[in-house]
Amino acid sequence: MAYQANAKAILISIGKEILRGLTADGDAHFLARKLTSLGYEIERIVVVDDDPKAIGAEIRDALGRKAKLIFTTGGLGPTFDDRTVASVAKALKRKLVVTPESLDMVKLYYKEMAKSGVVKSAKLNGPRKKMAKIPKGATPLRNRKGAAPGAWILEGGTSIFCLPGVPIEMKSIFQHEILPLVFSRHQEIAMDVPVATKDESLLALRLRRVMKKLPGVYAKSRVHGAKGKIRIVVSLHGPSQRKVQRAARMLRGY
Amino acid sequence: MAYQANAKAILISIGKEILRGLTADGDAHFLARKLTSLGYEIERIVVVDDDPKAIGAEIRDALGRKAKLIFTTGGLGPTFDDRTVASVAKALKRKLVVTPESLDMVKLYYKEMAKSGVVKSAKLNGPRKKMAKIPKGATPLRNRKGAAPGAWILEGGTSIFCLPGVPIEMKSIFQHEILPLVFSRHQEIAMDVPVATKDESLLALRLRRVMKKLPGVYAKSRVHGAKGKIRIVVSLHGPSQRKVQRAARMLRGY
Repeated sequence: MAYQANAKAILISIGKEILRGLTADGDAHFLARKLTSLGYEIERIVVVDDDPKAIGAEIRDALGRKAKLIFTTGGLGPTFDDRTVASVAKALKRKLVVTPESLDMVKLYYKEMAKSGVVKSAKLNGPRKKMAKIPKGATPLRNRKGAAPGAWILEGGTSIFCLPGVPIEMKSIFQHEILPLVFSRHQEIAMDVPVATKDESLLALRLRRVMKKLPGVYAKSRVHGAKGKIRIVVSLHGPSQRKVQRAARMLRGY
Repeated sequence: MAYQANAKAILISIGKEILRGLTADGDAHFLARKLTSLGYEIERIVVVDDDPKAIGAEIRDALGRKAKLIFTTGGLGPTFDDRTVASVAKALKRKLVVTPESLDMVKLYYKEMAKSGVVKSAKLNGPRKKMAKIPKGATPLRNRKGAAPGAWILEGGTSIFCLPGVPIEMKSIFQHEILPLVFSRHQEIAMDVPVATKDESLLALRLRRVMKKLPGVYAKSRVHGAKGKIRIVVSLHGPSQRKVQRAARMLRGY
């Protein structure tokens, strides 16, 4: 997503605890401050219940207002009343899918938690697996502080970010995933690199190595075509021409 | 306005400073907590700019949702960008009027300010007089902490309260004007009673019996904790200490 000054942003906070006055909506406050400092104009902030109809209506409303950015916070957890991702998917008429990447994120989290003895088992039960579900076509966003990945959905010209409501998790994803990926003020460079491999799962490992080696670079693979005629293109985004070209060299011919 | 348990409330916070993340929306947090404790259900909280169209649209939207209570906070001051009352009046197709009562309130404030030397003159200039304007048919609400009175507008079955955004003023009007006037016609008493049962469905029948036996008493169960560690608390609201305590006795130990 290219940076665009003065573009419109809309924040949707989801959760009964805010509506009941049990918690203040610190997430919206944080995002409003951050996005404003990045040059965005927040048109409105809405707090709604964990209710699929209410969530879907706000997503559609925000799209209708031609917001460039829509943030939802809250409702990504494992319990029955965490309905954000499913509601957003429904509003966009997309299926809910578990991608290898999102599943890896949840797996990794519980592996670490099991290792450190916080949870007994790293096994993915239903509620845990639920958190790996994202709308089809979305990019999962790694959550370093909790189990549920965020999701980045491109819908027309709008980026929809679904983030957890827990402030430390929301802030971490914003800082580590969204900022470098989306908002790099300083001449974000984008480049598409076709690769030879047709195995996206192996490619994923390679992309991770590229990103580890070149901090600030974001690499995402996209599959074009179907079945025998698959070709894979890697979209690179990065803070400098030099870094992006280095990443491209690491991928070319792969 | 008669007290009605479980009725719907909608909060509209107005002001660029919230959208820009300069101030957290403490007013909505305060009102959400207070109204919840009074038995209201806050359906949504919306933050919009000091923009007549946006304010009017939210007022009409909230009326369309059949809210019993609508609160606006912010935008009652003397400056050109304080547009709440005019926008609400326009949305309701009412004229803006200065009533003797609202004018007295503003006069009194500046008289006191002039007396204590905070302002030079008590004379009402244009910006000061502007704050005495309320929608036709509205009741001005005395502001003990600032210049701009609040306004209480009855529209169909809905009460719309326009309150200042300055927290100390908003809270003062809520506490001194709205609570006694609207919510405690009959000294509303609230009490939380923990119960022993973990079966909310059986409890529901018991609560219905309590409410039937003690008209005016409202009892609602809330579940805290999860899974094995559930505990249930019943929130009681009622017209008198005696009645609420009787309800509590009927529930204790259950």
